[in-house]
Parts: sequence; structure tokens; C-alpha cells
Amino acid sequence: MRTVGVGVIGAGVMGAEHARILAGDVAGAHLVAVADADLSRAEAAAQGARATTDALALIADPAVEAVLVASPDATHHRLVLAAIAAGKPVLCEKPLAASTAECLEIVAAERRAGRQLVQTGFMRRFDPAYREMKVALDSKALGALRILHCQHRNAAAPAWFTGAMAITNSLVHEIDVCRWLLSTEYSAVTVIPCPSEAGGSGDPALFVFETEAGSLVSVEVFMNAVYGYHVHAEAVCAGGTIGMAHPALTRTRRDGAEEGAFPANWVPRFRDAYRLQNQAWIDGIRSATPPADASTAWDGLVATCLADQIVEAMATRRRTPLVLPERPH
Amino acid sequence: MRTVGVGVIGAGVMGAEHARILAGDVAGAHLVAVADADLSRAEAAAQGARATTDALALIADPAVEAVLVASPDATHHRLVLAAIAAGKPVLCEKPLAASTAECLEIVAAERRAGRQLVQTGFMRRFDPAYREMKVALDSKALGALRILHCQHRNAAAPAWFTGAMAITNSLVHEIDVCRWLLSTEYSAVTVIPCPSEAGGSGDPALFVFETEAGSLVSVEVFMNAVYGYHVHAEAVCAGGTIGMAHPALTRTRRDGAEEGAFPANWVPRFRDAYRLQNQAWIDGIRSATPPADASTAWDGLVATCLADQIVEAMATRRRTPLVLPERPH
Amino acid sequence: MRTVGVGVIGAGVMGAEHARILAGDVAGAHLVAVADADLSRAEAAAQGARATTDALALIADPAVEAVLVASPDATHHRLVLAAIAAGKPVLCEKPLAASTAECLEIVAAERRAGRQLVQTGFMRRFDPAYREMKVALDSKALGALRILHCQHRNAAAPAWFTGAMAITNSLVHEIDVCRWLLSTEYSAVTVIPCPSEAGGSGDPALFVFETEAGSLVSVEVFMNAVYGYHVHAEAVCAGGTIGMAHPALTRTRRDGAEEGAFPANWVPRFRDAYRLQNQAWIDGIRSATPPADASTAWDGLVATCLADQIVEAMATRRRTPLVLPERPH
Amino acid sequence: MRTVGVGVIGAGVMGAEHARILAGDVAGAHLVAVADADLSRAEAAAQGARATTDALALIADPAVEAVLVASPDATHHRLVLAAIAAGKPVLCEKPLAASTAECLEIVAAERRAGRQLVQTGFMRRFDPAYREMKVALDSKALGALRILHCQHRNAAAPAWFTGAMAITNSLVHEIDVCRWLLSTEYSAVTVIPCPSEAGGSGDPALFVFETEAGSLVSVEVFMNAVYGYHVHAEAVCAGGTIGMAHPALTRTRRDGAEEGAFPANWVPRFRDAYRLQNQAWIDGIRSATPPADASTAWDGLVATCLADQIVEAMATRRRTPLVLPERPH
Repeated sequence: MRTVGVGVIGAGVMGAEHARILAGDVAGAHLVAVADADLSRAEAAAQGARATTDALALIADPAVEAVLVASPDATHHRLVLAAIAAGKPVLCEKPLAASTAECLEIVAAERRAGRQLVQTGFMRRFDPAYREMKVALDSKALGALRILHCQHRNAAAPAWFTGAMAITNSLVHEIDVCRWLLSTEYSAVTVIPCPSEAGGSGDPALFVFETEAGSLVSVEVFMNAVYGYHVHAEAVCAGGTIGMAHPALTRTRRDGAEEGAFPANWVPRFRDAYRLQNQAWIDGIRSATPPADASTAWDGLVATCLADQIVEAMATRRRTPLVLPERPH
Repeated sequence: MRTVGVGVIGAGVMGAEHARILAGDVAGAHLVAVADADLSRAEAAAQGARATTDALALIADPAVEAVLVASPDATHHRLVLAAIAAGKPVLCEKPLAASTAECLEIVAAERRAGRQLVQTGFMRRFDPAYREMKVALDSKALGALRILHCQHRNAAAPAWFTGAMAITNSLVHEIDVCRWLLSTEYSAVTVIPCPSEAGGSGDPALFVFETEAGSLVSVEVFMNAVYGYHVHAEAVCAGGTIGMAHPALTRTRRDGAEEGAFPANWVPRFRDAYRLQNQAWIDGIRSATPPADASTAWDGLVATCLADQIVEAMATRRRTPLVLPERPH
Repeated sequence: MRTVGVGVIGAGVMGAEHARILAGDVAGAHLVAVADADLSRAEAAAQGARATTDALALIADPAVEAVLVASPDATHHRLVLAAIAAGKPVLCEKPLAASTAECLEIVAAERRAGRQLVQTGFMRRFDPAYREMKVALDSKALGALRILHCQHRNAAAPAWFTGAMAITNSLVHEIDVCRWLLSTEYSAVTVIPCPSEAGGSGDPALFVFETEAGSLVSVEVFMNAVYGYHVHAEAVCAGGTIGMAHPALTRTRRDGAEEGAFPANWVPRFRDAYRLQNQAWIDGIRSATPPADASTAWDGLVATCLADQIVEAMATRRRTPLVLPERPH
Repeated sequence: MRTVGVGVIGAGVMGAEHARILAGDVAGAHLVAVADADLSRAEAAAQGARATTDALALIADPAVEAVLVASPDATHHRLVLAAIAAGKPVLCEKPLAASTAECLEIVAAERRAGRQLVQTGFMRRFDPAYREMKVALDSKALGALRILHCQHRNAAAPAWFTGAMAITNSLVHEIDVCRWLLSTEYSAVTVIPCPSEAGGSGDPALFVFETEAGSLVSVEVFMNAVYGYHVHAEAVCAGGTIGMAHPALTRTRRDGAEEGAFPANWVPRFRDAYRLQNQAWIDGIRSATPPADASTAWDGLVATCLADQIVEAMATRRRTPLVLPERPH
């Protein structure tokens, strides 16, 4: 049975996890090679497949039929363009590129290639809880959306994590998944950082988006929530609400309380989402039909483009209209 | 505005709590006197009302219009009979008396008095969660009951607490509240103690009752559950179930988990039940209409009578039919 | 035993409920009289006590030792001043008065009276869930507050309910309870109504407050949430969060789901809060020590004063500093 | 990349689901052929792979390296023996065989083959919630187990479903998963059917097991619970409890309640368990190391052997010791 040969670029936490998923959890794929500037790290992630320090050689390798980019952010743009040039499907971890201009280059290159080759790694679109919410929202069983409340809480961020990074690294997930969930674009944003932190990290901060569909999206981003990693969304509609249940599989009673655990970070919380995203990517390659719900190059551009505008809006503290470049036809 | 003068006998934990409730939480009553063998304890509970060591004098006191008995179990029989003899309403903490024979004496004395004077302090009948379950069960909205699962867990029991005491002190609450909840009588019981403890305390143990209405009642009694005080009931009906929600008012997230607290003992768990029981008792006296749902002298007898039979069934480990004496007409 | 004689002014939904609570659920009080423009309504609420159409006569009645004002909002100012003039403790339903100026008159009159006579009926301060949150926040066990998220959802509002009324009738509860909960004052507000409704009712709307203590308070007010009456608060602190649990006592499983009910309106949700508020008011009168946590005349003023400014902020859509008059010494 | 060629026997609901999982959800396998007495059903399940009506030919097919048996129960014994004779790993849906004697034949045949070839399809051992419970129980963090409470509820059973079938088809899952979870064997069982149903289907019924480790296992089996498919377990230990959380990913608020859905049947509830079981089976074949936690031929024998004894115990209503044949060495 033919399986898709995949090359993974980047063998850090994310790249190694992608290599593990593609080798052991996904049907129809096999791991051909892993590239990393650190060869021993590439070897560890390769689990017996080839290891290299040369990412472009990996892309050129005929046995590599599809490329997964999980290398440092600054390299995404160049590597995705190389994969497109090689005519190979590429799944690129977010961000797709560091600027709107670079993203536009990728969008244009893909258009010239004549077929959809790029998938941006916004894996939440494959998270079962988000998908259950999307099915409910699309069905309109609860009526039109009024407000989508989101919480994005990390247990702890490094000291060098700035307010801008909370937007470009964390909020960017909500930017992508909420416009997918609601099938609309944002028209404006108001950023209200917690005053006690305003002179500092701006953590936590509230972001309130208005959408073209006439609803609100409020997002609390808290990089140092201490108690655990916690991503939550609740859609308040005209006729009811739907929100995520607590993610724990079990409840423990001890020491005077009943408790349900939170994961320490995103790995357990979104394990299924990564697996299903990668499975859908492979299925799309095998069937020559890219997955309908996946984040495209354009979606990657929108995320980068809006994140930049929101960083500016955070500085001004004023309601700020959000705009997108014209989409190439 | 006339309020009912109440005398409280017993100033231990329960008696002091009853005095506090009657003085400060209940409309239409005032505390006249508290009796206890330990005068200083009586004075502390009396909060300015009279204190005495003479329970019979308290009952005889013309200012005492109603008597609450919360003294040691062995004194209940004598004091309730004295209150009946004085023609005064009496609310007696469980057990009503130590034996079926003594309970029958009380039932007979009350009959001779010509009016309902005795209420047994099975306060769970006034617990809002149990009442919400009873309304649902009586409505038959979920169909006929099949199994009622109960859990009665104490954080810790004293070392001298024997298996028989788990029945006469703890299970006795389920004996009363379940037959009230289901409007039926028990026909048989099977007792299955936890084997690792069978040679010892029989803790935890499972009690499975069959009822005349054709349903089962399973009760886990665990006197040393450590994690907290936890009373739970879930009614499994032909068309659905209804059970108690976790009793915590708030949820805390910290240290990697979301938690809802359990109370350390019955005081916070059944604070409302005691208040509402005592309010209903006072309202019944003021309106000369005893509360319809309260536990009567006969109910007190049933609890004592069945507890004795269940203690024997625990020893034999065999399915044991449960019988009641003929009810006096 | 001496009980406090109370006169209730207003026999609408709220007034009748207060009369019922004072007559039947509260220790140490008795209902002397009920006044209402509609005598038959007053009689129904009086349950055998006196009924009158003359509120001022009720206040003057020597048997009335304390006055509860639950009449139409426009009458509060006049009646509270009359109670102060008569030297009688008065518990006034919110709002204390229709304008800051009228509230200042009351504050000044009370000061002249030389003792604390006025309690404003912000009953949420006595709600057990809010109090559990306040104990936790005051303990600083979870660290400093960062954001307090609130939701105030009504099942349905009358068609004539405008955006301003959502603030003066509903949000006003959060205005009071959150500054009490956090022991701080608000410094600014940003109002963001749901765009789809901006030309209409502004329902739902988000209100984001900044506080002098350096935290945020976000409040969603949704007057037509359809699914039920739902008041929720979650405090996000530096080291964890504490929020309200679902208020249902039981869980029902049927028709493919487990469900916990919401109340249809505020009556069941805040029944305990009203009872405990009124009990604390009566206890305060009997002990000549007004309850420490109750909303005072000044608190009533703050609520009215801020509500007016928030109504203006809603119109401008800009971040608006919030100011209070100088507090009389 | 070499993948394991799998042949699936049986193309009913379970067989078709297994074929789908092996072809699309599992890494390292490919579907070679599907056999079913109904060829069109085999073709539908084969999704392009070979379809046949000849199960023995499928087993003999050199391209079939491993066999999954999901045909009618009565054929399991014969087909598993054929797979063993062909030296091919076989994953057999429960029951392994219809009688203890037949199971012993399989155990003996596997021993003669000299290596572990048989896995019994008790997929719950791979359910993430059960595994989280097992990790906690094995850690002894909560102390020794006292009682394991289980509920096995089906929405509805066919009219011809008898009490014995509730044991052999449904309870059999608890028989296997609980002895795995607790690492012990059962020593006795007491069966208490719901009296209202005793003359009929014995549905629901309570099964109380005693274990060699000195704990209790109580199981409610309710084949017609109506409200949904619901499998639940709660382990009550000396120092706390651990139980399954509600399985819903989202919560919906509408029509006066917050609700979390139950699945209609076992497919969504145990989708992950089936996938992970089949992945572990394939991984075990590829690495020549059968999965440590999987149910073996002996485990399949134990389940069949005990189910038979429990059927008899249900008839006698007496506490019944449970015995196993000597295990072949």
C-alpha cells in the first residue's frame, strides 16, 4: 500500500512531535527524513529515518513527497517557497511568515503553481471541541451569534515574553480559529490591558473584536495564569450558548475537594487536534483534495496581517479598524 | 406578634446548633430555656435565655410551649414521653428511641394524647436537593424508579465506631429519607461489607434494599472516606435519572486543577435542611397543622426497627426480609 | 421576646416578596403594615397585618419601627427621607434615588440624623456564592485580582427595555457588587455593544471597567439571553481563579443529555440573598449595629452616579473616566 | 515503508468499523481483504481492497499478515484457531469463544504455537479515561481500593435481549476491564435484579463482586436506560476517589438548562479506544512485542468463564463463589 513520504524540517519540541505523529499515529504516511541545524536533534526525531542539517536538500529529496515546516519562525517564508517551487505539499507551523508582504509572496507563488499546496498549521480547526462548536453554530440551532468569549491562558511565559508576543504567538490562534468558527472577518478591535500590568507586560489583556457579521469576539490572553494551560471558548447566541466542557477525562476527590486537572501545556490539550490535522493533510494529499476546513496560505496571511495591526492597537488603546489586503484572484 | 417559646434539651454540638437556629434563623420562635447536665454548656447555648440542668423542669415550664430534644440518645424515650404527657409539641433528634418497643410506647402515648405532637429530626426531608428530587420523582416525569443509588461518606469516624453504629447512626438517615423519597417500604436487604474490612469495621459496606414498589435502593456507607463529608443520591428511572449536583457554590482553579470543595462534616451540608426543618416545625405549631413531609413518631419507629434488623443482616450476610410491627390504629 | 415591627411600602412583586420574607423567613421581625396605592394588593401582601394606601402614615405609625421601601423607583427618594426624618431604619430597594443629587440629599440627611439608618437593597452582597468569592479574594490565597469576568443574563426583557435601562436596572447590580467584592473603585469604563444590535437595543453589550486597584472588570449584560436567568462571576487572579458553580441542586439525565436547570428569573437565584439581607438588616436593628457588608446610602449613591456616567459612555463608545462626588465628612 | 497487511473477517457494524479504522486511522497497517458471508457487505467495507465470502481463504492469503475477527460470535473459536494454525496474529472481537472449553482450546493452541498470537477485543483497556484511572490506581496515590462502582447503561435493547445476554454481551466488558484495572481476580458475586423486572428481563440489575484483593466491585447493568449510552466507573479508595468525567466536549445552554450530551451508543464513546487498541495491536506486530495491557487469550477465557457462572448466580440469587480453571503452564 502506497504511503506518502514526509520530510519534517525542524526537530525542536514541535518538529519532534510532528515527526512522532507522522511516523506513529497517522495512516497513510511514512517519515522519510528530518532536518535540523542540530544533527543529533534531527536524528533523535527521525527514529531511524534519515537525518540531515540541510533543509533544502530534504525538500529536493525525491523520496520526500510532502514537507512539514516546524523550524524557527524566520525560516518559514523561505522554506515554504522552496516547497512550492518543488511542487510539493507543505504544512507550515504558524506563523506562515513574519510579515504580510512575505505571506503575500507565498500566496502568489502558490497561485502560480496552479494548485493548493500550502496548509498553515492552525491545528485548533481540527480540535474536536471546536469542531463540535462549529457544527452547532453553522446549524443555527441556537440562532445568530452575539458574543464569542475566549480565554487563552498559559501557565507561565518566559520573562522575555512581551505583550506583542502574546499577540503574535498566542492570540494568533484565536485570530484564526474564531474567524473560521464564525465564518466572518473582523472589522475592528479594542485592546484593554490589565492596568496593573500596563507599564509592563500587558498581561493579562482583553481584546474585543467586532465582526462583519455583527457579533463580538472577546479574548482574554493571560500568559502567566499559573494554574495550568487553559483554552476556552463560549459562543453566546440569540437563543442559547455553546461552550467547551472542562477537558479532564477523570475527576479526583481528595483533600476536601473534587478536582478535574488542567494540562500543563498545549501538548496534551491539543494532541488530538495535531493528529487529526496531520491525518487530514495526508488524506488530502492521497486523495488530491485538500481538507476543506484547513487553514490555507491566505488564512496564514490574515493571521499575520491582523496580529501586526493588533500590536499597534494595543499601543494606542483606541478602537482600531482592522483591514486586509485585497485577495489575489 | 406572638412567637412560640421553645425549650432545647441538650447543649452539645446538635443542641447548641438547634438553639442558635431557633434564636436567630427561624421566624416565629423564641428561645426560652436550654437544659444540659453541664450547666455552663447550657448557658453558652442559651445566649441569654434561661439555663438549667433539669430537663423535666424545662418541659414543665409554662413559658416553654414546644420542646426540642437533642440530648444523649438514651434519654430521648423518656423526654419525648414527658413532652407528650405535658401536651407539648416535641421535635426529637434521631433516634426517636433505642428500641422498637420504646418507639411503640411513644407512638401509643401520642395516640392517646389525641393529636400529633412528635416530630423526628430526620432533617434530610427538608434538604432542598432531596426535595427537588422528590418533586421530580412524584411527578413521574422520568417514569417509575428502578434503582436509587446512595452514598453516605464521612471524612473520618472515631476508632470506637463499629459496623453496627454505621447503621444506627449513619445509614439510618438513608433508611428514613429514601422511603420518604420513594413513598414505599423496604421488603428485604442484602449487606455486603468490603472484604478487606470484613473482619474489622465493615467499612465501607454496601446495603442493597428491595422495596415493595419493586425498585432497588443501594447505599454505600463509608465512615472513613477521608476526602470530605459527602452525601449523594441518584435516582435511576425508567426514562432517565435525577441526582444531586456537587454541593459547592464556587469552583477554584489552582495548582493544575479546577476544584469544588466538599464540606468537612454535616453542618454546612445540611445547614439549610436544619433551618427549614425547624421553621416547618414552628410554622406547624403556629398554624396547628404539623408539616406534611416531616418525619413522625411512626417514621422514627420504622428507622429504629429496620436499623436493628439490618445490623443482624450484616452479621449473616444473607438476603434478609425486613418486617415492621403492625401500625396502631 | 421583642421582635422588630416592620412596615413595607410597595406591594408589587418585590414588595410582596419582602413582606413574605419578613413575616415568615426572618427571625426577630414581625410585619406591622403594608402600604400600596392599590389597597387590595397591599391587603394580599399584608397576610393579616394592616394594609394602607398611605405610605407616610405607615412611616409615622408608632408600631412601625423599621421601613422597607419597595415602591416605584421615583418614590424612593421621598420615602427614604421621610423614614430618616422619623428616625427609623430604612431598607430601600435599588435604586436609592433617581439622581446623584437626590442620593446626596439622602446621604446628607442621614449624616444629620447622627446614625446609620439607610441600607440600599443590593442583595447580592448577601448571596452565599458571592460571599464565598469575597472571602477567597480577601484572603489573597490566589494572589491579586487581574480580571473579574461577569455575566448578567436575563431570559427576556420587555420590548420597551432600552440600552440605558440595561445599565440602570441590571448592570447596576454588578456596579455595586463588584466594587464591594474587590474593595476598590472604578476609574474608567469602555462600552462595546454588540454591533448587530448597535442601532437598536445595544443588547448584549460588554462593559470593561478599570479599577483603582489596577484590575479589570468585564461585564456582559444580555437582557434577552432566552435560555434562562444566569448571573455569573469569575475572578482571575495572579495565582488562580475562583468562579461561581452552576446554581442547580440536581442534575437530570434524559433525552440524550445531562442537564442542570437555570432559574427563569432572579427570584429563585437570589432567594437566599434576599432572606439573608433582610435577616442581617433586622439583626442590625436589634443589636444597634448595622451589618458591616450591607450597601449603605453612599453605596446607593455610587451606583446611581456611575450608572448615569456609563449611559453616556455607551453613547460615545470611548473609554470614559468615571468620577464620584466628594464624600461628605 | 512496510505496513502490516490486515484481513478483516466480518463486515457487520463492528467489522466495517474495524476495516475503516485499519484503513484510515491507524499508522503502519493496510487493509488487504474483507470477508463476509454477504459479499456486497464485504465489498462495501473493503473500500477498494479485496472482498470475499471465504474467511479461511482470507486467513490463508499470503498478503494477509494479521487477522481481525469480527464475525458472528459462534464463528470466533474456529477462526481464531485457524489464524493460530496459520501462525498469524489475530485480534478477536469479544467473546473469544462461546464456552470455557473452547477458550481453553485456543489458549492451548496458542501455547503450542510458541508465541503470543491472540488478542481479545476488550477495547476498554485502551480507553483514555480508564487508562487515566488505572495510572492513578496503580500509583496508590489515593490508597488501596475499597469499592469500584460501575454503571453500564444502554439506551435501549432489542425485545429479545434476555437477562443472560446482559451478562454475556454487556457486563462482560466490566468483567474484563475491572480485573485489569484492579490487577486482581474476583472471588464471589451477588446478583440483585430490580424486583419489578425479576419475572422478566432482570433489567436493570446490580452485580456485586468481591475480589481477591479484598475490595468490592458493584456494577449496575441497565439495558434500557433510555436517556443515552453511558458507561461510568468510580473507584473509591482509602484516601479518595477517582471517577470518569462526563464525556461531552461541549456544554449547551438552552431551554432553561445547561446540558452535556451523551452518545447514542458505544461508537462515539469508545471511538478512541478502538483506534488505540488497533494501533497498539499493529504496533505490537511491527515490533514483535504484543502490547502489555491488551486482553490476551487467557483474559478472553476468564471473561467467558465468569460470565457463565454469573448467569447461574443470577438464577439462584445467592452469593456465589467464582472459580477459574487452572491456567496452563
